[in-house]
Amino acid sequence: MAGTDKKRALVLIADGTEEMEAVITIDVLVRAGIEVTVASANASESTAESVKCSRGVRIVPDTHLSALPVPTPSDADQSHCYDVLMIPGGAPGAKTMAASLLVHQWVQAHYARPGVLLASVCAGPTVLKAAGVAKGAKATSHPSVKDELKDYFEYRDDLSGSAIVVKDERHELLTSRGPGSTFELALRIVEELHGQEAREAVRAPMMFP
Amino acid sequence: MAGTDKKRALVLIADGTEEMEAVITIDVLVRAGIEVTVASANASESTAESVKCSRGVRIVPDTHLSALPVPTPSDADQSHCYDVLMIPGGAPGAKTMAASLLVHQWVQAHYARPGVLLASVCAGPTVLKAAGVAKGAKATSHPSVKDELKDYFEYRDDLSGSAIVVKDERHELLTSRGPGSTFELALRIVEELHGQEAREAVRAPMMFP
Repeated sequence: MAGTDKKRALVLIADGTEEMEAVITIDVLVRAGIEVTVASANASESTAESVKCSRGVRIVPDTHLSALPVPTPSDADQSHCYDVLMIPGGAPGAKTMAASLLVHQWVQAHYARPGVLLASVCAGPTVLKAAGVAKGAKATSHPSVKDELKDYFEYRDDLSGSAIVVKDERHELLTSRGPGSTFELALRIVEELHGQEAREAVRAPMMFP
Repeated sequence: MAGTDKKRALVLIADGTEEMEAVITIDVLVRAGIEVTVASANASESTAESVKCSRGVRIVPDTHLSALPVPTPSDADQSHCYDVLMIPGGAPGAKTMAASLLVHQWVQAHYARPGVLLASVCAGPTVLKAAGVAKGAKATSHPSVKDELKDYFEYRDDLSGSAIVVKDERHELLTSRGPGSTFELALRIVEELHGQEAREAVRAPMMFP
């Protein structure tokens, strides 16, 4: 975030969000010293309610998205701005977010701010399309939503290794393919915000195969 | 579970549990059609309370462990028995479980039942030692707790690829090393309960790098 050293991330969840995609991202970013806010994008604005994820894990969000002030380009107060906005997949969660005008506002607001990263995995990129941002960007997704996205993005697939995360520089967009690619996506976010050394410092103790 | 086709898993969590290790396991098992119960092993027996994991993710358990009947070897009613008991890591969560006599009872009860798998990752195997089961078994853990475990288990490290999951046949024990090895552990549980084909059916759509 401009003006402070502490980087900040906003992760959106809704009923039906893929819990691994949300939790791997949150956890890896926290390990990198990034302050993470987990916001519910459910239609109900209750902040007390847990979010029921795609395989039944119930997560208590830090807040409801409606309780946060939407950042504007001319905002002098940047205390509520984020360095990265992350949208996980899970088809029902992504559908809820894609249908939410509030989520559109947030995605558009982050997209409009220079230096702010959008990150998304699995069915999450359908939310970016619904919000009308990053059209023509190099992007990927879970194959199950390729048909919805292939004419909107410069669609990439048949990716492997660390190339499973697609970066579009101009649109400041990072996307990847499914829960199994989320570690790579989260580590790439760390690298973008804090550099290669920080990525390795976070990666090593997690003991990958 | 004996007597039905539906396999059942019990996953323990407590404040400080590594959320990725819990959530990856739960999610992958549910994808394989396994019924998963997430039980809090916190000292407080409130079932309404969320569990605050190691990197701040708050998970609402299905129940508190104290609300479930401990299986006994002579039990005629097997409706509350599980095919696998999974203990994730996260040092503070594992410490809470290692200090809990109720957790010891559960671990011992599962260990005593033939055909029931114990699975554990990261700092989780310290709980098995505290409960006094599987002594001498081939096992691994996160390197940070190797010193506590190397004289109790036939300790294995320097493992890579799918060998990062260590199986001890006689003790029906599966262990692995850290959050980055949890996908392998969870897929191995699926393979043990449902076979190689089920493992691949669950693995493929997750889009690993």
